[in-house]
Amino acid sequence: MIQNKNMNTKAFQEYYPETFSHCFGCGSSNPHGLHIKSYWHNDSDNETVAFYSPQPYHTGGYPGFVYGGLIAAILDCHGNGTAAAAGYRFHRRDMDSLPALRYVTASLQLNFLKPTPFGVILELRAKITEVTERKVWMELWLVADDVIRVKAKMLSVLLPEKK
Amino acid sequence: MIQNKNMNTKAFQEYYPETFSHCFGCGSSNPHGLHIKSYWHNDSDNETVAFYSPQPYHTGGYPGFVYGGLIAAILDCHGNGTAAAAGYRFHRRDMDSLPALRYVTASLQLNFLKPTPFGVILELRAKITEVTERKVWMELWLVADDVIRVKAKMLSVLLPEKK
Repeated sequence: MIQNKNMNTKAFQEYYPETFSHCFGCGSSNPHGLHIKSYWHNDSDNETVAFYSPQPYHTGGYPGFVYGGLIAAILDCHGNGTAAAAGYRFHRRDMDSLPALRYVTASLQLNFLKPTPFGVILELRAKITEVTERKVWMELWLVADDVIRVKAKMLSVLLPEKK
Repeated sequence: MIQNKNMNTKAFQEYYPETFSHCFGCGSSNPHGLHIKSYWHNDSDNETVAFYSPQPYHTGGYPGFVYGGLIAAILDCHGNGTAAAAGYRFHRRDMDSLPALRYVTASLQLNFLKPTPFGVILELRAKITEVTERKVWMELWLVADDVIRVKAKMLSVLLPEKK
């Protein structure tokens, strides 16, 4: 499950310039943050992956299972990282070129199919379904212990270029 | 904005028995948690409210605005707390009666309308739209600085009674 040959490359979030690197979910400069790191999924040119190990205190209301709010948060960050990667590709630009293309969530629809257990690494996946000048649509899902636990759809939009 | 005459009463989450009080989002026994506390909204018998002040490190990728993933998380907890309150009422039971009725998220659809700024208390609202034996549907919204920033729809389901 946790095999991904692109994990030795730079994560999408590691290309974000310092100004955008403080996000609680994925900012490399946020010491309190979750540090989500997203990569292209193996040989796919359309799918991405990230891995996350929840802390014991990330429990949900039901003992022994991961907090749904945390799952929403990490999928959100994986989605916006994926949107950035898709956006740079759409605009035929390198990910470290400036000005930075930063995407934010316009909508996120989550379906919690089964509880997510502790003790295994969570696999976050995204599949890019449509890209336009300023928008990226994705399907996302979370796998734990080889079972899909959560499915989501997400629309990310490019921030206007300012500062 | 932050007036609510029911805030001197016990929050919904304070009725959760110890077993269910460790949730990262709202568990009173989780020292690392967000401690969301939800109440009936003033005289409404159908709407609820909670307030939350994000920490500075809860920033999103865009400087100066609150992380969308955090917003998803706190709305999720406010929704499940609201569902519990609605469920106890539907089943004509006191909130401190056992066995505890605990609700979890089945689906959550978030629309981020405007960025959410720091420096103001966030008001989380929910309106119960339908209640059945095991399900509670709600509309939720987040207000900051008197402006609705996020709207959501949520379905919470009653956990099977076990243990």
